[in-house]
Amino acid sequence: MCRFVGYKGNPITVADLLIRSENSLIVQSIDAKESIKPVNGDGFGLGWYPEHSDPEPGVFTSIEPAWSNRNLRRLSEKIVTSCFFAHVRDATIGMPVTELNCHPFRYGNYLWMHNGFINSFKLIRRRLMKDLSDDAFNLIEGNTDSEFSFAYFLNQIGLDKNASADTLGANMMLMIENLRHALSELEITAHSMLNFAMTDGENIILTRATCGKIDAAPSLYYSETDDAVIFASEPLSKVRENWRKLPTNSVFVIDKNNSIEILQL
Amino acid sequence: MCRFVGYKGNPITVADLLIRSENSLIVQSIDAKESIKPVNGDGFGLGWYPEHSDPEPGVFTSIEPAWSNRNLRRLSEKIVTSCFFAHVRDATIGMPVTELNCHPFRYGNYLWMHNGFINSFKLIRRRLMKDLSDDAFNLIEGNTDSEFSFAYFLNQIGLDKNASADTLGANMMLMIENLRHALSELEITAHSMLNFAMTDGENIILTRATCGKIDAAPSLYYSETDDAVIFASEPLSKVRENWRKLPTNSVFVIDKNNSIEILQL
Amino acid sequence: MCRFVGYKGNPITVADLLIRSENSLIVQSIDAKESIKPVNGDGFGLGWYPEHSDPEPGVFTSIEPAWSNRNLRRLSEKIVTSCFFAHVRDATIGMPVTELNCHPFRYGNYLWMHNGFINSFKLIRRRLMKDLSDDAFNLIEGNTDSEFSFAYFLNQIGLDKNASADTLGANMMLMIENLRHALSELEITAHSMLNFAMTDGENIILTRATCGKIDAAPSLYYSETDDAVIFASEPLSKVRENWRKLPTNSVFVIDKNNSIEILQL
Amino acid sequence: MCRFVGYKGNPITVADLLIRSENSLIVQSIDAKESIKPVNGDGFGLGWYPEHSDPEPGVFTSIEPAWSNRNLRRLSEKIVTSCFFAHVRDATIGMPVTELNCHPFRYGNYLWMHNGFINSFKLIRRRLMKDLSDDAFNLIEGNTDSEFSFAYFLNQIGLDKNASADTLGANMMLMIENLRHALSELEITAHSMLNFAMTDGENIILTRATCGKIDAAPSLYYSETDDAVIFASEPLSKVRENWRKLPTNSVFVIDKNNSIEILQL
Repeated sequence: MCRFVGYKGNPITVADLLIRSENSLIVQSIDAKESIKPVNGDGFGLGWYPEHSDPEPGVFTSIEPAWSNRNLRRLSEKIVTSCFFAHVRDATIGMPVTELNCHPFRYGNYLWMHNGFINSFKLIRRRLMKDLSDDAFNLIEGNTDSEFSFAYFLNQIGLDKNASADTLGANMMLMIENLRHALSELEITAHSMLNFAMTDGENIILTRATCGKIDAAPSLYYSETDDAVIFASEPLSKVRENWRKLPTNSVFVIDKNNSIEILQL
Repeated sequence: MCRFVGYKGNPITVADLLIRSENSLIVQSIDAKESIKPVNGDGFGLGWYPEHSDPEPGVFTSIEPAWSNRNLRRLSEKIVTSCFFAHVRDATIGMPVTELNCHPFRYGNYLWMHNGFINSFKLIRRRLMKDLSDDAFNLIEGNTDSEFSFAYFLNQIGLDKNASADTLGANMMLMIENLRHALSELEITAHSMLNFAMTDGENIILTRATCGKIDAAPSLYYSETDDAVIFASEPLSKVRENWRKLPTNSVFVIDKNNSIEILQL
Repeated sequence: MCRFVGYKGNPITVADLLIRSENSLIVQSIDAKESIKPVNGDGFGLGWYPEHSDPEPGVFTSIEPAWSNRNLRRLSEKIVTSCFFAHVRDATIGMPVTELNCHPFRYGNYLWMHNGFINSFKLIRRRLMKDLSDDAFNLIEGNTDSEFSFAYFLNQIGLDKNASADTLGANMMLMIENLRHALSELEITAHSMLNFAMTDGENIILTRATCGKIDAAPSLYYSETDDAVIFASEPLSKVRENWRKLPTNSVFVIDKNNSIEILQL
Repeated sequence: MCRFVGYKGNPITVADLLIRSENSLIVQSIDAKESIKPVNGDGFGLGWYPEHSDPEPGVFTSIEPAWSNRNLRRLSEKIVTSCFFAHVRDATIGMPVTELNCHPFRYGNYLWMHNGFINSFKLIRRRLMKDLSDDAFNLIEGNTDSEFSFAYFLNQIGLDKNASADTLGANMMLMIENLRHALSELEITAHSMLNFAMTDGENIILTRATCGKIDAAPSLYYSETDDAVIFASEPLSKVRENWRKLPTNSVFVIDKNNSIEILQL
């Protein structure tokens, strides 16, 4: 059901978290510990903010498993950055394995990832699609609920590429509420898993949420140090005391200064 | 702008047309003669009807260029069939290279290919999308005008998997008329190229058509022998007398008995 | 450490064993039961003998995981054959994931697969390489111990494309003895796993063998019915009584008439 | 027959030369002007030296055509570097399209590219292979003459990762002489094309050379400015006066200070 990781802080080499940590994202791609299925081998993606003055992140995605991809290893060793997102995918049944479906998705300075799925997505997609402006609609290239949610979110903020942390946080809440509302209207009671992460390179919005079943949210942890914030679907190291679980049905707004506000869904 | 080939007749080895003919489809993938751009290296696809009693065709697609793909060579040498379609793609700018966008597209017993493009597709897509039933809408996996046209066609025939040659031919005409109408309503006068090919394994519907510019249709030829019909974007051999050009803005309906009816668009 | 399956008998659809059986090879690609690591996601391959009069098998390989590959599913549903081999790969550390390293390997009418690894392969490779004729040497395209073993075997039979079952069986034994001898000369005592399978479409040679540790051979089963022989790294169904384990350090020679001779290594 | 480009100088964004120049390497991948075949669609590679204190270059390779690869575009826009090599491949017949065969090849701090081919490579390979130490031999992963030449070169310098510009230049000459000698011994008179480029991030060694036919070397140009040296198989811009053709059968040694020494082969 996918695993992801994000980092913001003093510049580090991406490989430190992606490869060299004990339960790195690459380990989680083949042997995840806190999800029903251990394998997340349906592609991956890395988005990072360059150190030079370029606010738009780079993105590298592939449909190959993360564990065997040489480019990922080589890039991770060479990219030094103060903010990155990375994702390993376990495709929901019926969702094709294609680069267009690999996270993180990008728009302007934003990156977006999802861990989970929207139940009966095909049933609610067309209904929700009607809300989208043509510009937001035309951003969609793949066929996942994850990318669709991003387009829906972007539509809410009018495709504004420079929204504030508050606006991003409020619209993340609104997007989830809209999803829940649509599911409820169609009387879809089976649960959805709605862990989202987005950033503009300075602020991070993070959700651990469900719909239809209170305790079904995928695992999600964060770790704070003096100079960095890390979040990850699973702790990257066995030193558990460094990792705190996010409460279910909450939105984390981590701003430029790494101060954290928690909103209840 | 893509090249394609189709065959119906006595069983042959696919490689005979795909590889071993003088101007085979593989040659056309890297060195097409009758299109502005000679390279069709943005993936390919092969659809064929098995010889044993199975009315549903097999499909093999890849985003790699046809000329270097070992699987295509090996499969082509081993597949013996009395009907197949094959396509090499030159992606329209902005249309991603992904397997989801590779032709031929399949639904039930049908195969579908397109050589050309619908001008300003993103502008008319949403408008046309409204005509689709949920079932037809949900068939769409990629983001090409080609696959969209197929869904639109299938919607017209109510997703009927066993339509007659007459119904298929009439609905091909209707689909093109609907496309032209939508383009006209939005005052899109730049030309579109609408060469389509579809089959159910027994009947073949073929179009050479444009919209907005009478002489802009991609090249399309056919060749008849006692026991087979072949169509191809370019003659597969230099023996030109065997190949006849399809007239522009016409629909060819080739029925089970290889008798050909030509309809004017 | 890889999983494989092979079939010879009345024509069947490949998907019956590859997809539709309970513990099909596709299931084994992501959730193998009898190997230390459950995931065999480093590519796959299918080799089959066409039903029409063509003694040379077709081969389809890919570096993508078998479980998500659409082409594999589509081909498996359409290929009807009386003999096929299929393999899902768990790459030995340091062995690149590339199509050149995907099994089954083909030479003339032969197919070859390996489940296991030759310990310290890089140490003995150059030594063994000296035994090869230029023609056998030039057959090698990838860098696995598995393909190398095939070239070594072919060198032993003088690249004869029509060797008898007896010759094939005897040379399989000899090849393994030569491997063991080379390992012993270099005092490599760490164990190797030497489960090989090869066929010419009519005869099948199968080994379950080790070097350096008596009980380390990967699991390998076979099942006989009136009209077919199947072998598989793991039983394809829970009906265990149909499946018999091959004894360690033995070579199975299954001839055209499905009579089985067991040789001791 | 491949096209390549290299840069050393003030930090630039890779996309400036790879994408945004008039006759960029991406243009050359589909429409090369100065080679017999215009298409170089059999994969590509990019090697670059990170700006932070890391002497070892990153490498990104793919078997997909450069012109359609999204990762290449996205990475090129984000990588700022003072030295990079990039290559688009037109595979020699019989040389598989696999990432293992994509240039540039890397060893320690070195990058290596080749534009051309060694005639009758399979005939001289085994003979030359005997010269290699086990360590040099084991560096070879693919099956090209290009990577083999690199291993041969590295063997000559004893796998020294910190050789001087003089040593690198002298050994480039020696490697080519050894190739020519081997070809001559086997009486292979058909021509070979031996344009090589290598760097350690500070010094660049460049050859434009042939064997067997004096005027058969692929095109190769360089351009000097106050703060940079660029070389490319074809001028990247129409401003021809900026580009100078390298003389055939010469070795260019461009040292840390961009001073150029020309050696005659």
